[in-house]
Amino acid sequence: MSAVGPLAVIGGGAWGTALANAAGAAAPRPVVLWMRDPEAAADMARTRENARHLPGVPLHPGIRPTAEAALLGAAEAVLVVTPAQTLRGVLAALRPHLRPGAPLVLCAKGIERGTDAFLTDVAAQAAPGAPVAVLSGPSFAADVARGLPTAVTLACVQGALAADLAAALSGPSFRVYHGTDPRGVEIGGAAKNVLAIACGAAIGRGLGESARAALVARSFAELMRFARACGARAETLMGLSGLGDLVLTAASAQSRNFAFGERLGRGASPGEAAGGRLAEGALTAPALVGLAQRRGVEMPVAEAVAGLVSGRLRLDDAIAGLLSRPLRAEDEG
Amino acid sequence: MSAVGPLAVIGGGAWGTALANAAGAAAPRPVVLWMRDPEAAADMARTRENARHLPGVPLHPGIRPTAEAALLGAAEAVLVVTPAQTLRGVLAALRPHLRPGAPLVLCAKGIERGTDAFLTDVAAQAAPGAPVAVLSGPSFAADVARGLPTAVTLACVQGALAADLAAALSGPSFRVYHGTDPRGVEIGGAAKNVLAIACGAAIGRGLGESARAALVARSFAELMRFARACGARAETLMGLSGLGDLVLTAASAQSRNFAFGERLGRGASPGEAAGGRLAEGALTAPALVGLAQRRGVEMPVAEAVAGLVSGRLRLDDAIAGLLSRPLRAEDEG
Repeated sequence: MSAVGPLAVIGGGAWGTALANAAGAAAPRPVVLWMRDPEAAADMARTRENARHLPGVPLHPGIRPTAEAALLGAAEAVLVVTPAQTLRGVLAALRPHLRPGAPLVLCAKGIERGTDAFLTDVAAQAAPGAPVAVLSGPSFAADVARGLPTAVTLACVQGALAADLAAALSGPSFRVYHGTDPRGVEIGGAAKNVLAIACGAAIGRGLGESARAALVARSFAELMRFARACGARAETLMGLSGLGDLVLTAASAQSRNFAFGERLGRGASPGEAAGGRLAEGALTAPALVGLAQRRGVEMPVAEAVAGLVSGRLRLDDAIAGLLSRPLRAEDEG
Repeated sequence: MSAVGPLAVIGGGAWGTALANAAGAAAPRPVVLWMRDPEAAADMARTRENARHLPGVPLHPGIRPTAEAALLGAAEAVLVVTPAQTLRGVLAALRPHLRPGAPLVLCAKGIERGTDAFLTDVAAQAAPGAPVAVLSGPSFAADVARGLPTAVTLACVQGALAADLAAALSGPSFRVYHGTDPRGVEIGGAAKNVLAIACGAAIGRGLGESARAALVARSFAELMRFARACGARAETLMGLSGLGDLVLTAASAQSRNFAFGERLGRGASPGEAAGGRLAEGALTAPALVGLAQRRGVEMPVAEAVAGLVSGRLRLDDAIAGLLSRPLRAEDEG
């Protein structure tokens, strides 16, 4: 692909809109922003703003919001920004409209429920033949949209393609580093949402910043164990898309997953805490725990979150379980 | 040493007082809390409170605040909680009063200026023959004092002693894990103060949470490189005293180093930002950079902090330097 070719973004939420804007700012090029709802697309095309998900941020002039799948065919690369749990269905529906061989850049974070499949595997099944990359890292949509400095990782097993895509999407404030370990990048993105729920619950319960920091260190240790067991590289997990994103998500009420955990910590039931829209980490937790168990990896923090979210485990029991672990040597876990 | 023997704490600041309280709560035992100023010791003995540094927290009944060095001789182990830059002088002065062979548990964080010496080396020189351990981890004194759950690491090359000391200091809310890599633990404690200044500066400058998280990931990468070059173990740096403490210090205005950086980020000069009392990371930054350079380790974040603190580097130039690094593959640094 050329560094200034036309791009498409699938998904008109906050993150999809912010990424479309970043892609438009990176180089003068047409960017198709596809969304399911024709009315929302027409509104955005008229007002040049995503009033629902990213209010106050003008759409970059190169962006064309649309619900017409036929317009996707011009794109030399496609950023897929649908929620993790709908990825398979959306790709299956849109695949006939994509240019054959156009790389897919997966920007959602999660593990598919039911199948316990990583998103790169979902994409390979739903759109066979398309090169698949993963974009992830510490990046609130609002920060990217406001032009604040952000740095993310884009990884793909084809290293040259990863470098091309990263260069094509990088601008002065949105910096895209490239790598060749998509499995590591997607694991970091999926797991941090789960682990951030535990950190939110600790803060909501009033346990303080020191306890939250200890929980981040323990979460990172189990994330590393799991990633290694899945064949990912330790360096990837120590980078932007692993540690960086965990630090962001586990520390800020701006994160939906952290805020969900915080409400659980204050005593809300999982249903109340979700408020009609479950945080991605709540959906991914059981899949993550299942994958870990099948690989013989201990993930006590993720297991506590899965127990809390399902209602099987009470908050104080979950906390006591995490805090009263025997005083072993630290590196024994 | 026995798990319930008498202990001493050297240093009556917030952290020394909180650790004395934790030691008193862990087991019924006498705890001598030594401080330089006899008047402050008398006040604390009378009011049973450290009104200046930890107001509102009652001293545990077993604690005896004093300025009499002779009382230190009963202690089977001594927690040394003086600031890093005064460690050598304090140990030299008090050493004649300590029980021969009583282990020293270093609880300060930093690198000695002028000599660029790690604190375990300072202690070995100033009090030869005493076993030396390091206690560090994510723990605000106020959290420990309030009995909120905290977890720290205590490391010593003699593994059995580390386990004994950790057991002696652990209580239901203050959990002490043990390890055998004191170099790794002290490097994490020293470097995180420096790196947290950069994170504070990014927030003070209004760069947002995403930029801060990216900076934490980069800081951790350079911390790992430096620690490995010094013979520390990667596992130590990924644990409570490395990553855990970095996450705490780099995220909270409760941290003196982060708050100092935040004032720099808002445009204060280093002198104004210090407000009469320089943050430990500002003192350690040049020593850390010097040690790294002699080992051929690149530490761009620490170098930026050293430049800012010395007044050699302007804030926006420092930020531009960190954010505009070439877009290499992520794991090339």
